[in-house]
Amino acid sequence: MSRYLNLADTLGRRIEQGLYAAGSRLPSVRDLSAEYGVSLTTVQQAYRWLEMSGLLEARPRSGWYVPMTRSASALPRMGKPTLRPIDVSEWGQIQDLLDLEREEQPVQLGRGMPDVESPSLRPLQAALAREGRHAGIASLHYSDMQGVPALREQLSRLALDAGYQAAPDSLIVTSGCQEALSCAVRALCAPGDIVAIASPSYHGMMQILKETDVQAFEIPSDPVQGISLEALELALDRWPVKAILVIPNASNPLGYTMPEHRKRGLIRLAQRFDVPIIEDDIYGDLVYGWPRPHALKALDEDGRVLLCSSFSKTLAPGLRVGWIAPGRYFDKVLRMKYTGSGPTAPLPQIAVAEFLQKGHYPAHLRRMRRQYQRQRDVMTEWVRRAFPEGTRISHPQGGFTLWIELPESFDTHALDPMLRKNGILIAHGDIFSAAGKYRNCMRLSHAAVFTPRTEWAIRAMGAAIGELLDAPLSGPRHAETQTSAS
Amino acid sequence: MSRYLNLADTLGRRIEQGLYAAGSRLPSVRDLSAEYGVSLTTVQQAYRWLEMSGLLEARPRSGWYVPMTRSASALPRMGKPTLRPIDVSEWGQIQDLLDLEREEQPVQLGRGMPDVESPSLRPLQAALAREGRHAGIASLHYSDMQGVPALREQLSRLALDAGYQAAPDSLIVTSGCQEALSCAVRALCAPGDIVAIASPSYHGMMQILKETDVQAFEIPSDPVQGISLEALELALDRWPVKAILVIPNASNPLGYTMPEHRKRGLIRLAQRFDVPIIEDDIYGDLVYGWPRPHALKALDEDGRVLLCSSFSKTLAPGLRVGWIAPGRYFDKVLRMKYTGSGPTAPLPQIAVAEFLQKGHYPAHLRRMRRQYQRQRDVMTEWVRRAFPEGTRISHPQGGFTLWIELPESFDTHALDPMLRKNGILIAHGDIFSAAGKYRNCMRLSHAAVFTPRTEWAIRAMGAAIGELLDAPLSGPRHAETQTSAS
Repeated sequence: MSRYLNLADTLGRRIEQGLYAAGSRLPSVRDLSAEYGVSLTTVQQAYRWLEMSGLLEARPRSGWYVPMTRSASALPRMGKPTLRPIDVSEWGQIQDLLDLEREEQPVQLGRGMPDVESPSLRPLQAALAREGRHAGIASLHYSDMQGVPALREQLSRLALDAGYQAAPDSLIVTSGCQEALSCAVRALCAPGDIVAIASPSYHGMMQILKETDVQAFEIPSDPVQGISLEALELALDRWPVKAILVIPNASNPLGYTMPEHRKRGLIRLAQRFDVPIIEDDIYGDLVYGWPRPHALKALDEDGRVLLCSSFSKTLAPGLRVGWIAPGRYFDKVLRMKYTGSGPTAPLPQIAVAEFLQKGHYPAHLRRMRRQYQRQRDVMTEWVRRAFPEGTRISHPQGGFTLWIELPESFDTHALDPMLRKNGILIAHGDIFSAAGKYRNCMRLSHAAVFTPRTEWAIRAMGAAIGELLDAPLSGPRHAETQTSAS
Repeated sequence: MSRYLNLADTLGRRIEQGLYAAGSRLPSVRDLSAEYGVSLTTVQQAYRWLEMSGLLEARPRSGWYVPMTRSASALPRMGKPTLRPIDVSEWGQIQDLLDLEREEQPVQLGRGMPDVESPSLRPLQAALAREGRHAGIASLHYSDMQGVPALREQLSRLALDAGYQAAPDSLIVTSGCQEALSCAVRALCAPGDIVAIASPSYHGMMQILKETDVQAFEIPSDPVQGISLEALELALDRWPVKAILVIPNASNPLGYTMPEHRKRGLIRLAQRFDVPIIEDDIYGDLVYGWPRPHALKALDEDGRVLLCSSFSKTLAPGLRVGWIAPGRYFDKVLRMKYTGSGPTAPLPQIAVAEFLQKGHYPAHLRRMRRQYQRQRDVMTEWVRRAFPEGTRISHPQGGFTLWIELPESFDTHALDPMLRKNGILIAHGDIFSAAGKYRNCMRLSHAAVFTPRTEWAIRAMGAAIGELLDAPLSGPRHAETQTSAS
């Protein structure tokens, strides 16, 4: 990382932590240059970067200040509780999300796709090439049904970083986190069963529930505290809930990391009602702070947490290497894995094991966390400037997606013609709800290194939303009203 | 392939086809040497190979003869029809089958594992290495949910060889045939539903039914004609069967290829009762004759056949590249694929596409078919010599497994201590039945190039079976009788 980005990162974190109060002036360029032993240009570049990120503002002939208005972008509101479990709504849109990928050169803000062009992934490519060349035996055979042992050893070490213990023999490698989640749900639930799920939640989870004919009981989630334990307790008390699905760390899409005491509360509830918890920890290693927060599984005393994860967000989704630590449900989950797709392809497993074993993973994570955090700030600022007043923006603690909440009357699908015309891809809010809630929300990915088109896309969306809100009678939702009025 | 094996192959086929009658004398070494323009040594080696395969016998100072007794090894009998659908029995044994793999240097006759050490696979390894090196973009991204387009184009061409048409957009790439079958079953059946399945059948199919809580109606199968259409018609007439599962070409484990008119009869039945057919064509390209027999799907008029296949038997199982041509069930199957594991890893797909596109596949298949057919003959002969009288042996038309039927009173599990002690792995017959039938049967793989230990293992098993049969009172099944008698 270049010098000025390093400096911007350090300063940015101080501002975030409140070491420089809102409205206060930062050290002069000359002072900072002396303090850090860097050139004046470096400091100026760093300040300009922070300005672009909305963390500083320049006042001509006076210096650089922490903006007073920074706290103005409100967080999304917690959803209203649902009263009963429901069948998951149709998946047509998901298909759209995947299909649109085919467009040439889109501005891809829709998919939860990490930046796979980082130079810190080069050792992984080298490992894939090496393993491909020597693919004579190990990588062409059926692998161990649980996954390549060398990889499971590495996963066992990663588990310690996440605060839980998992012997290599207690882990099962899967084709991505999606298969881990699918095996977990199918191991625990039969058709007609009910699961409680944090809302909003990853759309792939919703679709698993739909295809297994399991009903979703959506539990509202706070953008900072996570799943509402109060609403969850009510649900557990009144309904025969078979499992709880949560994403406690750098949650998708809201970005919260549940505070430790809330995690404890969640575990206690699960114990009291004797319900297993399916934990999606896919973004856990991408929480910006260090060390990473513990997984919920770290608090698990009786093997009731099935932790699902993968390298799809931290390394690359094309590897299709995920895993599950299924606790006491090991046997059943292994059978689901066996019958669902057999063993996972060994070649990528061996390459990932080598990448981890050689110690490349922490440096790569550091780099990606910095990039994602910096771009979170930049995109937040772009949205704050371009989107109409009343827009609420999440403040993710990790990962690479922002959750944007527009005024309740707004339907993000009204943007579709404009998005299509301009080749902009977003994730509409309603795919993150079983009931199709959150139509006034969208999720924007800030993973890939920004280009001028990224900022342009945000501005264009902001303008289009503004127009649609200002002209309510011309919006498609009011077509009838318009007709009768004209 | 060396010269003598080429010659042995040609002669072997003539003997098989009856061009040399049982008991007749083959041309002298000198004559054949002149006829084919090869050395005397080459002819002698070819004759010796054919002798080892049981296709010839040497009579001292007289020459080489087609044995009179060759037709003596009887085919397995068709199973008795079951009267109703049943729940699939436990999977503990399957786990044993997979676990035992961990043993060092076993004689592996149990798993349906192709020979992945063939030099004809080298271009595939080269493609994997190339793709690994350039893994920057395509192979690290999420792939198309249906699979890499370049591979689907190649699959579309392979479909023509199997007699059916399938546009690239109508195909879905899966993680092996197992995922294809699992998606097909889950797309068609809900828990409690009944499927009709050819019996015996691939154990992985049985386990899919078990894990989806679907009941299996086992339809007896003839070792030459395949699934009994008469028994199937009865089942369809009396029970609400939701799908028919068959392996029409080089069926696993019996090895039959259904004659064309039986395939037509099967399709007509499915149409009459309006039931979809799940066709497992995984061994279709390994049928020994050329051109390969048509898939059942070639006769499909209304999209009711879901053809499942993979490169796990033809190339290498570690690739985890399979596919499904789901006909009219496309949408539902694609959703199952998406929710079950997401897209398939692109790297192996790209490598396989390259292998196919460059034309390496037909030569590789020719080589493997010859190897598997030759080893079928050799192993058949070994079994015929070593196993007790009354042993019945299948005569597979493709693939690389033999089905051995022992006297009805025999339980192949009585062999377990001996097998364990000697590191011999076989597939017990009962895993090929939902009801745990076929305990007197076993499936032996003849894929890997034989070593002296292979023949030794067959002999050792034969001897052990003989001993157990001769001393019925000491067998574990008769432990009680023994106690009361002594």
